[in-house]
Amino acid sequence: MKISLGADHGGFQLKEFLKRRLSEEGHDILDRGTFDPSPVDYPDIAFRVAQDVFQGSTGILVCGTGIGMCNAASRMEGMIAALCTNEYMARMARLHNDANVLCLGARVIGDELALSVTRVFLETPSLNDEKYVRRREKVARGCQ
Amino acid sequence: MKISLGADHGGFQLKEFLKRRLSEEGHDILDRGTFDPSPVDYPDIAFRVAQDVFQGSTGILVCGTGIGMCNAASRMEGMIAALCTNEYMARMARLHNDANVLCLGARVIGDELALSVTRVFLETPSLNDEKYVRRREKVARGCQ
Repeated sequence: MKISLGADHGGFQLKEFLKRRLSEEGHDILDRGTFDPSPVDYPDIAFRVAQDVFQGSTGILVCGTGIGMCNAASRMEGMIAALCTNEYMARMARLHNDANVLCLGARVIGDELALSVTRVFLETPSLNDEKYVRRREKVARGCQ
Repeated sequence: MKISLGADHGGFQLKEFLKRRLSEEGHDILDRGTFDPSPVDYPDIAFRVAQDVFQGSTGILVCGTGIGMCNAASRMEGMIAALCTNEYMARMARLHNDANVLCLGARVIGDELALSVTRVFLETPSLNDEKYVRRREKVARGCQ
């Protein structure tokens, strides 16, 4: 699975950790920065990851809480972002919401929990029940 | 403070709890449904709350995980949604992200924690540091 990984300064250390561990587990990682702990604007990073997700990669975005990244990703075409703080949320994000971008808060959850949440997100398929698909389509249309 | 409150069937019970408790605390609540536990599409509810937020209310949206509501709200003009599972996230959602819609997962956090998270969200002002404003503006532009 190809994974596009991005973080701002708040998420930099966790991104490095996830990059190393997911690479060791055999995933193909596209690292879209940031590449050091100096301040950057999270929307710039989210935009880079969005280009990859648009072409079929799964996205992972990390900032301090995950909220900024989730806001930024959700504004971009084709991105279905899910901010998850535990495995249950990650499972539902795939099963019900068909999310293609996982958002994580490096100041909210620890590195091993973040890895566990990520694994669940990557391993869980999307359900295509009629009701879930209908709701996702309403979201994509801006619910109008 | 005027609060526009909405939930799907997964969030119905928590919405009723928050409506009662926030009303007792003196808030003016607009209840935008759902009004019973039968299944509804969360984007329809988010859309109703969005109309109120557009006119200045603070929004609260509840579903099973908060993810679907966060996706739906984030697609709508003027909505800055934040899915929060604890008070730290709620505080940062206001300070850094200037969120105007709080999303909650009724199957993820319990009712008293949800109320506590909501109180922090309602009580915390937004910081208007230049860097936070610049990042929010990039989000609003879709980061292009």
